[in-house]
Amino acid sequence: MAKKIQTAITPTRTEDYSEWYQQVVRASDMAEHSPVRGCMVIKPWGYALWENIQRSLDDMFKETGVTNAYFPLFIPLSFLEKEAEHVEGFAKECAVVTHHRLEQGPEGGLVPAGKLAEPLVVRPTSETIIGDSFSRWVSSYRDLPLLINQWCNVVRWEMRTRIFLRTSEFLWQEGHTVHATAEEAIARTGQMLDIYADLAEEYLAVPVIRGRKTPSERFPGAVDTLCIEAMMQDRKALQAGTSHFLGQNFATASGIKFQNAQEAEEYAWTTSWGASTRLIGGLIMTHGDDDGIIMPPRVAPSHVVLLPIARKAEERAAVMEYTENLARALRDTWYHHTRLRVEIDDRDIGGARGWEWIKKGIPLRVEIGPRDIAANSVFVARRDKPHREKTSVRRDQFVSGITALLDDIQKNLFSRAADYRKAHTVTIDDRDGFYAFFTPENAEKPEIHGGFVRAHWCESAECEAKIKEDLQVTIRCIPFDSPDEDGRCICCGKPSPRRVIFAKAY
Amino acid sequence: MAKKIQTAITPTRTEDYSEWYQQVVRASDMAEHSPVRGCMVIKPWGYALWENIQRSLDDMFKETGVTNAYFPLFIPLSFLEKEAEHVEGFAKECAVVTHHRLEQGPEGGLVPAGKLAEPLVVRPTSETIIGDSFSRWVSSYRDLPLLINQWCNVVRWEMRTRIFLRTSEFLWQEGHTVHATAEEAIARTGQMLDIYADLAEEYLAVPVIRGRKTPSERFPGAVDTLCIEAMMQDRKALQAGTSHFLGQNFATASGIKFQNAQEAEEYAWTTSWGASTRLIGGLIMTHGDDDGIIMPPRVAPSHVVLLPIARKAEERAAVMEYTENLARALRDTWYHHTRLRVEIDDRDIGGARGWEWIKKGIPLRVEIGPRDIAANSVFVARRDKPHREKTSVRRDQFVSGITALLDDIQKNLFSRAADYRKAHTVTIDDRDGFYAFFTPENAEKPEIHGGFVRAHWCESAECEAKIKEDLQVTIRCIPFDSPDEDGRCICCGKPSPRRVIFAKAY
Ligand SMILES: [Zn+2]
Ligand SMILES: [Zn+2]
Repeated sequence: MAKKIQTAITPTRTEDYSEWYQQVVRASDMAEHSPVRGCMVIKPWGYALWENIQRSLDDMFKETGVTNAYFPLFIPLSFLEKEAEHVEGFAKECAVVTHHRLEQGPEGGLVPAGKLAEPLVVRPTSETIIGDSFSRWVSSYRDLPLLINQWCNVVRWEMRTRIFLRTSEFLWQEGHTVHATAEEAIARTGQMLDIYADLAEEYLAVPVIRGRKTPSERFPGAVDTLCIEAMMQDRKALQAGTSHFLGQNFATASGIKFQNAQEAEEYAWTTSWGASTRLIGGLIMTHGDDDGIIMPPRVAPSHVVLLPIARKAEERAAVMEYTENLARALRDTWYHHTRLRVEIDDRDIGGARGWEWIKKGIPLRVEIGPRDIAANSVFVARRDKPHREKTSVRRDQFVSGITALLDDIQKNLFSRAADYRKAHTVTIDDRDGFYAFFTPENAEKPEIHGGFVRAHWCESAECEAKIKEDLQVTIRCIPFDSPDEDGRCICCGKPSPRRVIFAKAY
Repeated sequence: MAKKIQTAITPTRTEDYSEWYQQVVRASDMAEHSPVRGCMVIKPWGYALWENIQRSLDDMFKETGVTNAYFPLFIPLSFLEKEAEHVEGFAKECAVVTHHRLEQGPEGGLVPAGKLAEPLVVRPTSETIIGDSFSRWVSSYRDLPLLINQWCNVVRWEMRTRIFLRTSEFLWQEGHTVHATAEEAIARTGQMLDIYADLAEEYLAVPVIRGRKTPSERFPGAVDTLCIEAMMQDRKALQAGTSHFLGQNFATASGIKFQNAQEAEEYAWTTSWGASTRLIGGLIMTHGDDDGIIMPPRVAPSHVVLLPIARKAEERAAVMEYTENLARALRDTWYHHTRLRVEIDDRDIGGARGWEWIKKGIPLRVEIGPRDIAANSVFVARRDKPHREKTSVRRDQFVSGITALLDDIQKNLFSRAADYRKAHTVTIDDRDGFYAFFTPENAEKPEIHGGFVRAHWCESAECEAKIKEDLQVTIRCIPFDSPDEDGRCICCGKPSPRRVIFAKAY
């Protein structure tokens, strides 16, 4: 029996994927559970990652003419009642504000007082309240297009939560645009999906499949829902961004009308699109290994940590001077329009120091000891390689080559993830094979199994529902690049015009 | 009688300052009231200003080692009960969440359901919930200093609201730091106040007085509260940022303890500091004139608007080409580490176009017509000068000189505000003069009156309370630069060690 390799994270992905995830989050010091049920505290290392994601996305939005705005946290109950009229058996998990004061109770303690005439709901999305503003902002075709985005917190009461993936409060952006024509709104829907795909692939190094949702998986009220889907290392799909073409439905519900150039009044055409802190969960599950998270350089909170090593007290001054000098040179280096972010960790805590940075996933670790200084070189380790693999590099070469090195790590992460997805994406044409593919060997404690299946589907909601019920497998999307191809539905055998992607999903 | 000058804003500042403010906000298209009582919608032009303020402040924070994090929106009631124990007759205006679901009621409509075992409060500040995290994050002197900031929304139920100045929901940042020694915490308190003062003076062009609050005006629980105070054009003071040294009080309440280098356990020393969207209200009231807001260039949403003028259809193509060409050249120009932000407004709406930009306060308006193009020059108007004052400038000179021009506007706004404050800051030594100074001629509808008074105060809370009750005048601060000087209290005549600043305030 092979000796078990020591890993920083216990359990490993294979042993217990879901527990591995929780342990990676904890070990990376990115976030923690809060005393408020279902809410998380995003710690500096996790929040810096979010800031970098946010900045990248925000820049891309602005390049296309989008501007940011801010709408109230609270939604009047009556706004949701309008929506509820259209939804049978409406029940919404959300935080309801009923009072506006706390007072000392008769037996000590505090009690809610000042009951509100109309309860307020903490926004689960700002759709209705933004619609209300838009109905006032838009009156003529000259006011269009209106391209608005909001960065904010939203709340959806969740019973079973997992940090970053499903929490009662999370951070996100929601874009809402208004157009004079269907064509323009449809084009915008696609444009924003492309931005999400660019963010995922170019910045997060997460390969995604672009496609559209089936009618039953569409956002309620949408005419068309586009999405990007990524494969996690447990081979489940994670939806990493959606963009909706809402036709005139939302404009009709919110009263967004405009006078066209012919002076006739029309309902406008709208889109909405969003991405959230869930992306961080996706990033962890795409790149993390059994030693912790791996940060893609383009969004890493820091790019490189310098680890001075001075075993004797008299070496310390020289080592620190060399280290700080190197840090200055690196901080003066530009990497994709930002300066390199450099940490110096001079704590005297032995091997725990290096491991901490491995678990945090910093792309590069650089050891600097007296012998390296004598040779004017540094000892470099890449987070995407085994932790023992370290290379001695001449200092100048390291500084001049660091951006290429980071780009190489970025590329390597992407291609590893793309290879993984390729290895676990299969084409299946028979029902038994399909069912077998999605059935774990161990039903009690399912091992990592399944993947993405390219299969035919007759376009009926019944077949879709049947597969979902039997296997918890859904159609993730109808990929844009799925060619027309005659086939037989994997479920009922009736004719199908093209293959779709089936998978289990988060 | 002189002919009344036409102004874009009605009423003028002199006629009705408070109504003028509301009209300036409306005319600038920065924000609007929302259907939710007391909450505002920050529109793109207002939000872009906030983003610039936020970015400037955030960069300064990070330069001092502060990192951002995010804490939950909700605070368990029990956290506030701890606080309430120390506050007599505790009553807090805040939004209380009591339910976590909406369901269809028996008579239609939605009703709150799923009552929470413990109500949650929407954060009026995150102090207690951050304290809870800190008590877990800090255990050794090696964990210190801990320097955390949060950008977020907070809610304080307000009965009488005014956009940006007092709203039930507002955006802010709250910084919280933990230190091993009192000295270090005290130094950090001052350092953060300096950052707020720099933001106000260098970016917002708002001159401020730095000082400390009297014990009765201190933040509850603080050992020392430092503040910056600015004078608005109605001569009232606006507090534009505060920084608190909390001693060990907050650490004791939250259980933030650490093991020092001698392995003894101690309570830590903490600070907190904050600034909010209120700053925008202060900016409007400092620089706005009777034609609307004036944006200081360093934080302006846009720096310059190009206004092509083509009276005949056949001129249009050439004018637009010239305009777009100029816009490109300007956008390639750097102004204080950011590229110039340039608008092109080619709407054919006559004089309303120019006035819209005046009301929005854009620093520079540039008209481009066929005759200007023939002379290769542009027609430039500065927002800080009378609106008719326009200068023809050679195009190349305009491009090469624009950053100096913007700096000049920035400087001019600052010195105008400083002159105004100087003109309305007086030294008063007699009680009657003091009372007269703060008493309007028209008690029914007070005209703009008063200002800052440098007067002696005996340091008794009674005299402070008396003046507040009689005149609604408070001690804004004990200025850092107030020299030791023997005098007699303006209220009771007893000895006083130095002058303080009295004023009416927002
Ligand atoms: Zn079928
Ligand atoms: Zn006195």
